[in-house]
Amino acid sequence: MGQWAARSPPGAADSQRPMPTPSRRDLANAIRFLAIDAVQAANSGHPGMPMGMADIAEVLWNDYLSHNPGNPKWFNRDRFILSNGHGSMLQYALLHLSGYDLPIEELKNFRQLGSKTAGHPENHMTPGVETTTGPLGQGFANAVGFALAEKLLAQRFNRPELAVVDHRTWVFMGDGCLMEGISHEAASLAGTWGLHKLVAFWDDNNISIDGQVQGWFTDDTPARFEAYGWQVIRGVNGHDPDEIRTAIDTAMKSSDRPVLICCRTTIGFGSPAKAGKESSHGAPLGKDEVAATRAALGWEHGPFEVPEAVAEAWNARSAGHNRETRWGHVYEAYAGQYPAEAAELDRRIRGELPADFAGIADAYIAKLQAEGPVVASRKASQMAIEAFAPHLPELIGGSADLAHSNLTLWKGSKSVAGSDPDANYVYYGVREFAMTAISNGLALHGGFLPYDATFLVFSDYARNAVRMSALMGAQAIHVYTHDSIGLGEDGPTHQPVEHLASLRYIPDNDVWRPCDAVESAVSWRAAIERRDGPSCLVFSRQNLPHQARSEAQVADIRRGGYVLKDSVGAPEVIFIATGSEVGLAMQAAERFGDGARVVSMPSTDVFDRQDAAYRESVLPKACRKRVAIEAGVRDFWRKYVGLDGAVIGIDSYGASAPAEKLYPHFGITVEAAVAAARGHD
Amino acid sequence: MGQWAARSPPGAADSQRPMPTPSRRDLANAIRFLAIDAVQAANSGHPGMPMGMADIAEVLWNDYLSHNPGNPKWFNRDRFILSNGHGSMLQYALLHLSGYDLPIEELKNFRQLGSKTAGHPENHMTPGVETTTGPLGQGFANAVGFALAEKLLAQRFNRPELAVVDHRTWVFMGDGCLMEGISHEAASLAGTWGLHKLVAFWDDNNISIDGQVQGWFTDDTPARFEAYGWQVIRGVNGHDPDEIRTAIDTAMKSSDRPVLICCRTTIGFGSPAKAGKESSHGAPLGKDEVAATRAALGWEHGPFEVPEAVAEAWNARSAGHNRETRWGHVYEAYAGQYPAEAAELDRRIRGELPADFAGIADAYIAKLQAEGPVVASRKASQMAIEAFAPHLPELIGGSADLAHSNLTLWKGSKSVAGSDPDANYVYYGVREFAMTAISNGLALHGGFLPYDATFLVFSDYARNAVRMSALMGAQAIHVYTHDSIGLGEDGPTHQPVEHLASLRYIPDNDVWRPCDAVESAVSWRAAIERRDGPSCLVFSRQNLPHQARSEAQVADIRRGGYVLKDSVGAPEVIFIATGSEVGLAMQAAERFGDGARVVSMPSTDVFDRQDAAYRESVLPKACRKRVAIEAGVRDFWRKYVGLDGAVIGIDSYGASAPAEKLYPHFGITVEAAVAAARGHD
Repeated sequence: MGQWAARSPPGAADSQRPMPTPSRRDLANAIRFLAIDAVQAANSGHPGMPMGMADIAEVLWNDYLSHNPGNPKWFNRDRFILSNGHGSMLQYALLHLSGYDLPIEELKNFRQLGSKTAGHPENHMTPGVETTTGPLGQGFANAVGFALAEKLLAQRFNRPELAVVDHRTWVFMGDGCLMEGISHEAASLAGTWGLHKLVAFWDDNNISIDGQVQGWFTDDTPARFEAYGWQVIRGVNGHDPDEIRTAIDTAMKSSDRPVLICCRTTIGFGSPAKAGKESSHGAPLGKDEVAATRAALGWEHGPFEVPEAVAEAWNARSAGHNRETRWGHVYEAYAGQYPAEAAELDRRIRGELPADFAGIADAYIAKLQAEGPVVASRKASQMAIEAFAPHLPELIGGSADLAHSNLTLWKGSKSVAGSDPDANYVYYGVREFAMTAISNGLALHGGFLPYDATFLVFSDYARNAVRMSALMGAQAIHVYTHDSIGLGEDGPTHQPVEHLASLRYIPDNDVWRPCDAVESAVSWRAAIERRDGPSCLVFSRQNLPHQARSEAQVADIRRGGYVLKDSVGAPEVIFIATGSEVGLAMQAAERFGDGARVVSMPSTDVFDRQDAAYRESVLPKACRKRVAIEAGVRDFWRKYVGLDGAVIGIDSYGASAPAEKLYPHFGITVEAAVAAARGHD
Repeated sequence: MGQWAARSPPGAADSQRPMPTPSRRDLANAIRFLAIDAVQAANSGHPGMPMGMADIAEVLWNDYLSHNPGNPKWFNRDRFILSNGHGSMLQYALLHLSGYDLPIEELKNFRQLGSKTAGHPENHMTPGVETTTGPLGQGFANAVGFALAEKLLAQRFNRPELAVVDHRTWVFMGDGCLMEGISHEAASLAGTWGLHKLVAFWDDNNISIDGQVQGWFTDDTPARFEAYGWQVIRGVNGHDPDEIRTAIDTAMKSSDRPVLICCRTTIGFGSPAKAGKESSHGAPLGKDEVAATRAALGWEHGPFEVPEAVAEAWNARSAGHNRETRWGHVYEAYAGQYPAEAAELDRRIRGELPADFAGIADAYIAKLQAEGPVVASRKASQMAIEAFAPHLPELIGGSADLAHSNLTLWKGSKSVAGSDPDANYVYYGVREFAMTAISNGLALHGGFLPYDATFLVFSDYARNAVRMSALMGAQAIHVYTHDSIGLGEDGPTHQPVEHLASLRYIPDNDVWRPCDAVESAVSWRAAIERRDGPSCLVFSRQNLPHQARSEAQVADIRRGGYVLKDSVGAPEVIFIATGSEVGLAMQAAERFGDGARVVSMPSTDVFDRQDAAYRESVLPKACRKRVAIEAGVRDFWRKYVGLDGAVIGIDSYGASAPAEKLYPHFGITVEAAVAAARGHD
């Protein structure tokens, strides 16, 4: 410690005198004190991790990271992911120092309303932040998705001497990430796929929030990662730049395995009273300890002050510009030799659909409406994939070991485990949470439109990653089949009841539960065209009847809810239903008579976004006699039927029996719907 | 194969001739064909796993398992857990053959409505099923909870020569369980805790639903478990009873580590066309293949027929009775020498609270109401633990590395990692999912009342285990702090929005969100007194005002919702609020005037179970002007305010800023509540 002080007496930064060359420790200390000072100013945050990982970050960012601070969206940049996202000030300091559009004022406003420096890194808010982190382990799984995207784009587009896609994914993670189950799922897949351009740094500081980890974290982590097929570099001193360099040099030589670099560090490095202790983890050091740390590290600059020499040494704008320019030359040569490939890569990078997609979708949907196949909606989903995927090479799919139940494979599916240039199918194994977080990584990397799949009930296993799709605005398509008691004999552990409502409540998440093949195709199309967020597509195991529709009705499906069968005159009763219960609602309406309207509501989320006039045209305020029918929890539907209406649904767990026995057992019947409608006469 | 056929010509079971001694393979084949025939009869189910694990199960159950089929609730029985629960017919066959109250008619009704043989094993339905399995990996984590319960009860109650608690936990699991992240979390903890009486059998059959696993499951699983500190017995032929015996003998010698026995097996063993293939996994073999399998294995008996000699060899009722009787003698001696300990163990086994608990709780709650502390409800939660825990030695708590944020430690907390007889605190590390599933195991084992804790937003990580608590009727108490945007600077990744509503929608799950220290204590009490299901206790990070109450109001808190402040005359408007928003509702009511009633609704689940008269007394139908206030998704509240009322809430993600900035930013204010009330004039 104290090298800066030793080599530069007070006033050294005075522009009249030649600037000393800052030491590596000086550069790292700039990170430390930006973090310390910002947390102190906010009176909130996590100084310990940035202080502990500053030396690693300094070496990585100054010597290895291939990026361009002037263009955070440069496509061939290395991706840097802070899976231990509570150490957000580390990342903000790095972004600020290296020259991203994150001025010092933003750091001074750390954790304040309207700043770009949120408590945890937010991809949608801060330039240079690739993915939102904080929920532990997920950043690491996102990173596996980023690295998979790079591998697949490279094997699809690169040509000899023209590696237009050629970058690495670097991820920082702490003990917390490694304790989380998702780290197991993600590391296992990364090992199986041999993602050698993925390098993870383990911040092995022996401390988690509850204290010294030996009471609850005794894994031999290096051995564990070797068991996943990773290359593991053990015992690196995370405060020694030479050791860090050696480790990274070694990691970059890996040609077939992802690499874990195990760095021993001291949390809160430099703090006389708090280094090595959990007290440095999640609270400001306190004014006196900040001063003591300044003294101990020989950092004589005021809060948020970065000496000019240090700032210059950090500034990577020029180097970044040159890097992107060099790549631009490669890209130009590529575009000259392979114009079709370049145009396709361009399109995928921009995230634009093929120009003819809308027409293809229109034609397919019209054909389905005319032909009226009676199939399970999971089958209709597969038919939609089969219809759209040949036109969407960016579509990359997979299932958590339920390919033949979720029906996620199509004729063109090719496993990503190999080196096929058209690889587009992911056998995720039974790993719902990592699958979903990897989808998020694939979506955020760019160049891909990912879908994943499991049974609806096991969306529970992935739930926070679904939330993160929505929070980040990641276009991931989550396919959930076996959507109700309609799946039958597998019983209550496999029968979702509360899941539809719960997924709909995730903000910015679009849930679709189509009632037939036509609505299934429209929901797939909506998910594909929704560029700024995720969709959950929910499908039945059992066959569903086809519904007749006019052209106008077909067009209205995409509005989330529409009149499928209208009453003669103003409606006396409105049946509202989704998915497998729409057929039942149609029967109930027929039984009820001319006064019944049926509203098919495949997506409440999308319907709720329609203008008031449209919503009124579907659910006129004047008609309070409304009966909602869905094989799920009933209270959700009070938003449409109010206190005066009725809901036919299920508020208990299901049961193990054939589906045709379960519907009457739980009272979800035409008779019940008609009785509810008449009961409110 | 075919040993039975070789040694017993047709007619051998004829009672006139001496019965041959069945071979081990015969005994295992009885399992196989019960499974094959039941799946065939149901035309639904999973024959492959029972066929593959039959030999292992036969050896374990006939030679080692310490149980008493005549008394499935014998406290000192070994616990057997089928984590790969889709192989439920294996367990039903074992229960039937060994003499549990599961007659052959139940097996013939496999997967039918009203049978005791559901698609997946259900603890609440079938004698001898310890825990409901099917959601992969969770049975294994439950098993860690069972083994922890045994270890802790043994170290608390056993005395030299008097081991009244002395049993093992055996768990079967497949590749799917091992791929799931929860297996990592649970195995890591079991290793750290040295649960040497936990023995797991890995059904290493190289097949999962999507096929040969090498495309998605390449872990070196033995090395991985060694990295967790397990003893691993490699390469056992899962179809060779001698090898299986040797492995189990070795496992039972472990004195400090849990044991993984890796069994190579053939899925669908015995089926000429489907053995070793995924086609045997999840569908009936088909009539012809059933016949071919009968021929291949030399099983000449009809569907559901078990030859008498085989049935006799399996019957464990007498041995089980003797086993329990022998234990009874030990217990009698124990009770003679240690009457107080025996009485306490008895009480804990019965799951009864101490006789004086109600009085202690009454007194504590009355004292709080009188003193009116102004604290965060998370602090009030800790105060309640501190008040109740000294009287509840069965209370065992923990947190997922957030002890000092969740405030789950109390003065008497002692880590379970050591050998303290009063150990009652679990440092779970950052493992929300396994934590919750381990809670379920602790609760189901008996003798413990577990609580666990994390931030509310990370209930997502544990979500399916919370569902399983409720589905199984397990009394686990899930403590969730930092319950809204009120947590402030950590930002949207840490701010729950949809979680309250989503948790409430889980059937049979009681969610409480108390508004002050008094309601916090009542919610803890309700959770402690609710013997047949889980509770989620949701607490604030920030301080909450104390509310004045009459004795009658204090008594009504336990009804889930009650009138906290009444209007003068019939209510013109009813404000309904929970938790941190109750204070805001009280201010709004004051601002509104005499016509306002305030309903505090700490538990909608409990309120909804009250009789109609009580509910009407709180929310009279005549008053449609209702304003709900909760810092969460708004639509949930339509069930109480209907289409005519208003909801003040938040339907978007939160933001990173001090809490006092966030409430006005998101419009959750007294002004908004008053305006909503007046707007409906």
